[in-house]
Amino acid sequence: PHIPLNYKKFPADETLRRAKEFYELMNQRRTVRSFSSEAVPMDVIKNIIKTAGTAPSGAHTEPWTYAVVTSLEMKQKIREIIEEEEEINYKKRMGKVWTTDLKPFKTNWVKEYLTEAPCLILVFKQMYSFRADQKKKLHYYNEQSVSIATGILLTAVHYAGLVSLTSTPLNCGPAIRTLLGRPSSEKLTLLLPVGYPSKDCLVPDLERKPLEEIMGYLKRNYRARSPVPRKSTQQRSHRDIKRPSTLGNMFPCENKAANEVKIRNLIRSSSSTTYTEKINGTPVVITTGIGAEISIVPIGYVRAEDTETIPETIRLEIVAV
Amino acid sequence: PHIPLNYKKFPADETLRRAKEFYELMNQRRTVRSFSSEAVPMDVIKNIIKTAGTAPSGAHTEPWTYAVVTSLEMKQKIREIIEEEEEINYKKRMGKVWTTDLKPFKTNWVKEYLTEAPCLILVFKQMYSFRADQKKKLHYYNEQSVSIATGILLTAVHYAGLVSLTSTPLNCGPAIRTLLGRPSSEKLTLLLPVGYPSKDCLVPDLERKPLEEIMGYLKRNYRARSPVPRKSTQQRSHRDIKRPSTLGNMFPCENKAANEVKIRNLIRSSSSTTYTEKINGTPVVITTGIGAEISIVPIGYVRAEDTETIPETIRLEIVAV
Ligand SMILES: Cc1cc2nc3c(=O)[nH]c(=O)nc-3n(C[C@H](O)[C@H](O)[C@H](O)COP(=O)(O)O)c2cc1C
Ligand SMILES: Cc1cc2nc3c(=O)[nH]c(=O)nc-3n(C[C@H](O)[C@H](O)[C@H](O)COP(=O)(O)O)c2cc1C
Repeated sequence: PHIPLNYKKFPADETLRRAKEFYELMNQRRTVRSFSSEAVPMDVIKNIIKTAGTAPSGAHTEPWTYAVVTSLEMKQKIREIIEEEEEINYKKRMGKVWTTDLKPFKTNWVKEYLTEAPCLILVFKQMYSFRADQKKKLHYYNEQSVSIATGILLTAVHYAGLVSLTSTPLNCGPAIRTLLGRPSSEKLTLLLPVGYPSKDCLVPDLERKPLEEIMGYLKRNYRARSPVPRKSTQQRSHRDIKRPSTLGNMFPCENKAANEVKIRNLIRSSSSTTYTEKINGTPVVITTGIGAEISIVPIGYVRAEDTETIPETIRLEIVAV
Repeated sequence: PHIPLNYKKFPADETLRRAKEFYELMNQRRTVRSFSSEAVPMDVIKNIIKTAGTAPSGAHTEPWTYAVVTSLEMKQKIREIIEEEEEINYKKRMGKVWTTDLKPFKTNWVKEYLTEAPCLILVFKQMYSFRADQKKKLHYYNEQSVSIATGILLTAVHYAGLVSLTSTPLNCGPAIRTLLGRPSSEKLTLLLPVGYPSKDCLVPDLERKPLEEIMGYLKRNYRARSPVPRKSTQQRSHRDIKRPSTLGNMFPCENKAANEVKIRNLIRSSSSTTYTEKINGTPVVITTGIGAEISIVPIGYVRAEDTETIPETIRLEIVAV
């Protein structure tokens, strides 16, 4: 059943004033890595999580669990798991490029904030749930939905005058999930210490991209800015240069009829499937699954255009490889 | 270089008051699928996109492009692409379970809002950019970062008194990307019509999960709620029931030494790689790539625990299959 939208329009100048005011407020947000141990009232945390719960989600699946940890004992266990993995990440797994990219943040594998911050919010995405008849109900677009909800959560944290750190503990998901007794239908996706900043808290001196760099305004004859620095035109690849501007001779989608291969009921269960098949003579490996990327991979190589995030129980049409 | 955090603490009661006020505000947000054609001032849209641009992002890569479309001609082209694909999605690709899940929303492949709404914001995630020396700079966690930023954007839309629809046009990414002249380093991830609701706008009568269902509060001896409906205990799988509560006998992570297989420099370029390998005697297909899911797949089957979203240039340790 449908109901009338509850809506009251602001006067035009009020709309603009609020849009600016909210930008000014949010522009003060910074990621904080050094916390005071002062406790945050649980009522505040509850309202913040309730706010995250107002987020949109694919087919209204609300695929999120926010686990709140405040006991020192639990925080210590979590810190142990993460520091052990992060030391390996930094020393072995991440490689030189990545650790160099992280230099400006002065981060390493010692994570004092995990025990200092009064409150840790661990964000789990639910890959599926169960229907009344025990069948699995897949949560389409769960990764995106949870991240959108977490964007709203971070906004609520900031609006309430608290600070947080958005972190992604690499390789620690299953251990922490098990520690917290979350079911295997869920995956840890973010870990957010929340609280007040330490006295004399420092943050990296970063700049944000100006509006022109993040917004393309398409009035009529839109020309996108190139992501390649100007001076280097000779080094651009063919792909980055070509910018077809009409709908005519475009994407393989258009030639669907020519190279259509239908795979029916490709995915029957909630698991991913990987197998090899020839498409137009090219051997390809196809990997597919709920919430996962579906890749159609000429062996050893994948084109960005050939991957698309799809949910399950789709009947896949491979339009081109 | 680091600088002092600009921070002013609210009094405790003010923190709680604001946390509640913001929840009340956001709880009024609904996804709207029927728009008035009244134009939105471009200054409002700009402030909303600037607000999205204040979001945190993995290693401060700011991997987002917001393409704003207001011309009817462009909106029509986008609508054509989407309706053509969506008709196939609904009729063939999505399958019965999915279309049944969508029934309450009364959605179908006719998308009037794409031409009715005064403004479309198309959200692109940037998989990589280029460094000064022309080397590709990978954007770690770009999907999560963009979705978090979009959560903040949706909040800004609502704060300004506008409405929007969060949509994910399935299979249309490359065609729309090409139409808008965005480079191949980017992928369309969301499409958001933004504007005012139509007069007498209706919305599905949905309920949101109560706080207890989305928040787990771990004081000491945390017991998670089961995602399986209570009455059906006999049908739960072993996996959903076991909830080890100590760190002792937990995840394969712990037995690393036993089944460790090291793959060095697995990913050298920005492309994904798929290949077959035997791990402890089991043939597995390994697919991996930037920003993509990495799957370690005993052929035809993947365990949720064995996939982890990883960025590139990682040295992967496969700890178990
Ligand atoms: C990632 C994501 C994808 C969505 N995709 C669509 C879509 O393609 N079409 C649509 O009509 N609604 C879409 N929605 C909107 C949801 O159906 C909507 O958020 C949900 O029904 C809850 O309603 P509410 O936002 O009014 O609370 C999507 C939402 C999210 C977060
Ligand atoms: C998806 C995501 C993952 C992140 N992971 C980490 C992390 O593991 N550790 C960390 O210290 N910061 C992490 N950050 C925080 C970013 O480094 C930070 O947002 C960025 O440097 C910009 O700074 P700002 O948030 O103060 O504007 C992450 C941010 C996002 C959005």
